[in-house]
Amino acid sequence: MWQCQGVKPPAAPAGAVRQGSLRELNLALVLGRIAAARRPPSRAALAADTGLTRATVSAVVEDLVAGRLVTEAEPTPRAGAGRPARGLMLAGDGPAGLGLEINVDYLAACVVDLAGQVRHHTVHRADLRPVSPADALGRLAELAGRARVDANAQGLTLAGAALGVPGLVDDAGRVRLAPNLGWRDVPVPELLADHPPLTETVDGVPPLVVDNEANLAALGELHAGAAPGSFLHISGEVGIGAGIVLNGALFRGARGWSGEIGHIPVRPDGPPCRCGGRGCLELYAGQEAILSAAGLAGADLPADRASTRLTQLATAEHPAVLRALAEAGTAIGVTVASVVNLLDLDTVVLGGGYAPLTGWLRPPVLAEIERRVLTAAWSPVTVRPATLGATAAAVGAAGSVVRRIIARPGGWLARL
Amino acid sequence: MWQCQGVKPPAAPAGAVRQGSLRELNLALVLGRIAAARRPPSRAALAADTGLTRATVSAVVEDLVAGRLVTEAEPTPRAGAGRPARGLMLAGDGPAGLGLEINVDYLAACVVDLAGQVRHHTVHRADLRPVSPADALGRLAELAGRARVDANAQGLTLAGAALGVPGLVDDAGRVRLAPNLGWRDVPVPELLADHPPLTETVDGVPPLVVDNEANLAALGELHAGAAPGSFLHISGEVGIGAGIVLNGALFRGARGWSGEIGHIPVRPDGPPCRCGGRGCLELYAGQEAILSAAGLAGADLPADRASTRLTQLATAEHPAVLRALAEAGTAIGVTVASVVNLLDLDTVVLGGGYAPLTGWLRPPVLAEIERRVLTAAWSPVTVRPATLGATAAAVGAAGSVVRRIIARPGGWLARL
Repeated sequence: MWQCQGVKPPAAPAGAVRQGSLRELNLALVLGRIAAARRPPSRAALAADTGLTRATVSAVVEDLVAGRLVTEAEPTPRAGAGRPARGLMLAGDGPAGLGLEINVDYLAACVVDLAGQVRHHTVHRADLRPVSPADALGRLAELAGRARVDANAQGLTLAGAALGVPGLVDDAGRVRLAPNLGWRDVPVPELLADHPPLTETVDGVPPLVVDNEANLAALGELHAGAAPGSFLHISGEVGIGAGIVLNGALFRGARGWSGEIGHIPVRPDGPPCRCGGRGCLELYAGQEAILSAAGLAGADLPADRASTRLTQLATAEHPAVLRALAEAGTAIGVTVASVVNLLDLDTVVLGGGYAPLTGWLRPPVLAEIERRVLTAAWSPVTVRPATLGATAAAVGAAGSVVRRIIARPGGWLARL
Repeated sequence: MWQCQGVKPPAAPAGAVRQGSLRELNLALVLGRIAAARRPPSRAALAADTGLTRATVSAVVEDLVAGRLVTEAEPTPRAGAGRPARGLMLAGDGPAGLGLEINVDYLAACVVDLAGQVRHHTVHRADLRPVSPADALGRLAELAGRARVDANAQGLTLAGAALGVPGLVDDAGRVRLAPNLGWRDVPVPELLADHPPLTETVDGVPPLVVDNEANLAALGELHAGAAPGSFLHISGEVGIGAGIVLNGALFRGARGWSGEIGHIPVRPDGPPCRCGGRGCLELYAGQEAILSAAGLAGADLPADRASTRLTQLATAEHPAVLRALAEAGTAIGVTVASVVNLLDLDTVVLGGGYAPLTGWLRPPVLAEIERRVLTAAWSPVTVRPATLGATAAAVGAAGSVVRRIIARPGGWLARL
């Protein structure tokens, strides 16, 4: 994961929020509680919850409301005397996150507001394998520009961006290898520097973070709240990546390159893979392998459409498609059984192009878990589709920006 | 992992240490710093390090010395005026941990003192597959009794025990499944209750913890300090288990059943495994598979001897043994490549019977990593033998008891 630290704004004027100050800590504390609350809490409830005085909470809330981070919910009429207490919730008209994705056969841009709502989402379908990295990033910058115009028109300010790529990203934001895109050592930040800035500069929020798309998709699912604290999220596209969430946090590994499940060998002596190995999962369960096994190779279907088409044909009980999905599901199941034997996870989320196909992939996956996981008899594993499906990486990317603002609101407030 | 909480001792007399009290916290703080220090720290250094006053440190140290948890190092003569400051170190004559292991072809008992020294170690070789669980545990209790007599003769007091078994243990200490022992639903704590208590009762230290032996072996390596904060430790016996250490802590999984690497399929359509799966790693790289491939099946060599014999024959360049080790190394390498693709770990420790064979196993393991790990070009993986080798599980078990006393010394001190 690469983080480009923005140029720091000039020293804040007297009275402004300085990071690390007590005021900054109180702002983050109160905003965090409002973000985590199931129902909009009142100022009194926040005081009781945080241990701050009523006066401090009121002052902090005033700052948060003035900075368009928090808004008052419509009061619900209540019985009894006195003015009804007004609940506080995250604002939908302040800062927002820009989420971007480059995949093998599409580009995506989306905007997520502080309240977690997706306010803009565009997918541009194109086979990016014959396109140079500079051109692909140029098209992405165009998509980002349009997202920014739309966000501004809705009264939102983009306060940072995150970009998901289907490959290995180093600390400098360079894509070391994206085998299915054919990218090797692509300096993404340099190439994007030729384009107008994608977002406003906000202290404490990097203008652009480059990350692996499977990691961002797993974060998207985690933030969506439907998955438990530990799960394996598999993104099935042309390539297959995974995000591993352990105890509520993404596990990135020694260099941030965990989750390369697509290159776990299913058959060690199988056909050669473009990664240099043999018999990798991608050769049996990647999108092109499924299309080819179903006799649909060369149909030239882009990612979303391929998945839609497969779903239609499977629904119509097309025998070759059913067979292809059963074979892919078996290969996924063999690999998932390895992961469960190793990590003892109890939830597997099928994401990306797999999400709509879960009905057909789940039975063979569960059958392999049943056969091969030593603890299967006592430790049932749930296999379910991703809530966000194919949009998870871009939504997760935008959500990761929003999470940074909520964790450190001082930078945003100092900017005003 | 099962923890049998001991019967609480009678209420502590006035002035004794109560858990959770400020005094207990200070005792744990000071003892922890002494345990972690590279050189015996003086009282003054401890005061500077902990932020406690000199007087508080002196009082706390007095309690720790009186309780045989800490001792003064021999003063080193120094130039200059004044009495030389005496360094403080963990005592080697106070409480100790009892570590036990049941494996397929041996039983082991060891005693580790507070300073981490192994003070007693016995291995009893026997094929335990034809023996009933009750009889095997009876023999183990005998071994534990002898360890206790030896520990007492050395002035040590056993303050808790941990037992490693090659299988899945539930929260009640029941062995749900140990495929290679042929155990299923064995209530270890009940069966051991017929024997005299293995250790003294100490508040806060469970008299017996039952855990997976591969987990305990990984903890042993972690405590031995030779491995980095994240690594995969593979215990190669008749069965193959793994302990996964992430950021300095054992990763146990949803139910504590992580690390079942022996049942990761190497060839999904391979021969049936006793676990119910097919083509599991154990069938290619378990001790019996190696002996059989080397033409030594039926030689009836117990675990330690099998490993020694294989090492002798490999050193003498016995062709069938070299071939068998190369094949086993390739199977381990295919599996390790999956783990590294998934978790991005940079260190693999070969433990148990694999430790002395590392010279022959490492090249094929590294070759498979090189071929199959997507990030291999930028992210080198170190493969090295375990420091503790075949004794790791019992030593790790005893060490885990000692760690509990260091983390909460109040229970031990209250007992005196």
